Amino acid sequence: MSGLSEFSLIKQYFEKYTVARDDVLLGIGDDCAIVQNKTDQQIAISVDTLVEGIHFSPDADPESLGHKSLAVSLSDLAAMGATPAWFTLALTLPAVDLRWLAAFAKGLANLATQHKIALIGGDTTRGPLSITVQVHGFVDAKQALRRDGAKEGDNIYVSGTLGDAGAGLKLKQSQLNNISGTDTDLMFLQQRLDKPTPRVELGQQLLDIAHSAIDISDGLVADLNHILEKSNLGAQINLEALPISNELLSITGREQAEILALYSGDDYELCFTVRPEKENQLLKNIKENYTKIGMITGGDKTIFTKSGQKIELTGAGYEHFSTEG
Amino acid sequence: MSGLSEFSLIKQYFEKYTVARDDVLLGIGDDCAIVQNKTDQQIAISVDTLVEGIHFSPDADPESLGHKSLAVSLSDLAAMGATPAWFTLALTLPAVDLRWLAAFAKGLANLATQHKIALIGGDTTRGPLSITVQVHGFVDAKQALRRDGAKEGDNIYVSGTLGDAGAGLKLKQSQLNNISGTDTDLMFLQQRLDKPTPRVELGQQLLDIAHSAIDISDGLVADLNHILEKSNLGAQINLEALPISNELLSITGREQAEILALYSGDDYELCFTVRPEKENQLLKNIKENYTKIGMITGGDKTIFTKSGQKIELTGAGYEHFSTEG
Repeated sequence: MSGLSEFSLIKQYFEKYTVARDDVLLGIGDDCAIVQNKTDQQIAISVDTLVEGIHFSPDADPESLGHKSLAVSLSDLAAMGATPAWFTLALTLPAVDLRWLAAFAKGLANLATQHKIALIGGDTTRGPLSITVQVHGFVDAKQALRRDGAKEGDNIYVSGTLGDAGAGLKLKQSQLNNISGTDTDLMFLQQRLDKPTPRVELGQQLLDIAHSAIDISDGLVADLNHILEKSNLGAQINLEALPISNELLSITGREQAEILALYSGDDYELCFTVRPEKENQLLKNIKENYTKIGMITGGDKTIFTKSGQKIELTGAGYEHFSTEG
Repeated sequence: MSGLSEFSLIKQYFEKYTVARDDVLLGIGDDCAIVQNKTDQQIAISVDTLVEGIHFSPDADPESLGHKSLAVSLSDLAAMGATPAWFTLALTLPAVDLRWLAAFAKGLANLATQHKIALIGGDTTRGPLSITVQVHGFVDAKQALRRDGAKEGDNIYVSGTLGDAGAGLKLKQSQLNNISGTDTDLMFLQQRLDKPTPRVELGQQLLDIAHSAIDISDGLVADLNHILEKSNLGAQINLEALPISNELLSITGREQAEILALYSGDDYELCFTVRPEKENQLLKNIKENYTKIGMITGGDKTIFTKSGQKIELTGAGYEHFSTEG
């Protein structure tokens, strides 16, 4: 089911950016693409859909949206330590808006070029705006960073800073109270929401070092819980250690920033666990920013501490189909 | 971007049907699935989206819809001669309707089991109903049936019968005039529309025999045109040779049936070209029904004949974003 008119749309706007790869034997334009796997590598595959009104607003900037559509899937490859190779794009559009399509393609293609990932096929259909991107990457299955690999005593780390995208979303929805900060601070948060950086290189660097990893899409607590559930373990998180950007700090202050760091999603940083003996290896090999925020414990609970004291928290990360609607 | 709540929905309804495969190293439930390719085979990949109101009506039977969602993508693998291996499902739902989901899963899983294709991942999001399925299959790239392989003098064949699904759609939309036929005839056409049979085995059997192939999703004329454009050739089609089912014949008569066979889509039969010297090989190897309907010619036009006379035809297959709206 792949009429020329469907593909010609995609082709027209995307082929000028196409990343050339020797392992793409047949690209866009036939019933299927044909690709060649590396013989000693397995293939990591992930698919994500972004829907207008749910994941982005109707007035979303199309170039940022193109970037984000690929970024959220690349982030899943990052969380496994996989090397990006190919992706497909299923685009459902209410109408053909050439200006929108050109900007969307530009945002998508710039990120694709940066990560040398080739668009190999797709489908364009009419309907309410939604974007489904599926990515494929190479990974050594024995080495891949999985959710179920955490061990008791592992230190817990996160990359970058947390809560920025969540604050950006709340600002957009006018849900942040008592805010201060400069326009530059506000723009930073907006960028973190609209143009997240998938931590692809970091994921690959962690392959020999980390026991487990996940990307933070639904919020630190929600995503760390996936690791804990899969590994049958608990965790202790030191709130004072949570990495908060100066921009977020100056806008919300520390306390509100910590809550955002714990419960808000869309940062696409990595959360990973490493056994203490490997801390030197981490220091030596990882150039990107990362912060130790706690440790994996026995049991099945997550305990939050501040100044050495246990803290009770309530709140929830963003969950699709949550009862809150 | 793959919260547990997204996947748990899919898992709950699909895991009981899951096809066990040794080459799925990590299935649903992590950031990515991990699969193992066969060392001597390439991977054929295709993605299709079905949108409510465009590709199916709001009252569509969910079990049939589950079947069709996978069938249209399997049909693309069939058109390349690929062997199905893995698929992903990105499901956007306005709300969680457990009865709908169970029926949808059943239809999808029954077809998946039949073709030994494993569901390895997906995404479930809230939004207007749409279904994106991406399939992966094994194929020898040198052997794969492509659109650009037709040669002048090739005979043109189609599998099964044509026009049934198109008539089924017109019946549903009360757009067929002067119809006769029994309830059994009507039900047959409905089934052909709702539960198409992807010609996966036929595609594989054609690997050594056919020069080119495509699946008929947009209509014979539209899809044959893709072969002709890619191969820079023309065709001659004998209208009297078009394979029409007895059911369609008894409902519309021959003339209307021929127009449907040429221009209506959704049959998911294969159209393929074979050089005359290989007709014996075709006879010997292919057990499924197929019919010779014409031949590939020089030039770039398609000529239609009836009783040896040239016929002028107008009409258009279903095209997304066509100017007709």
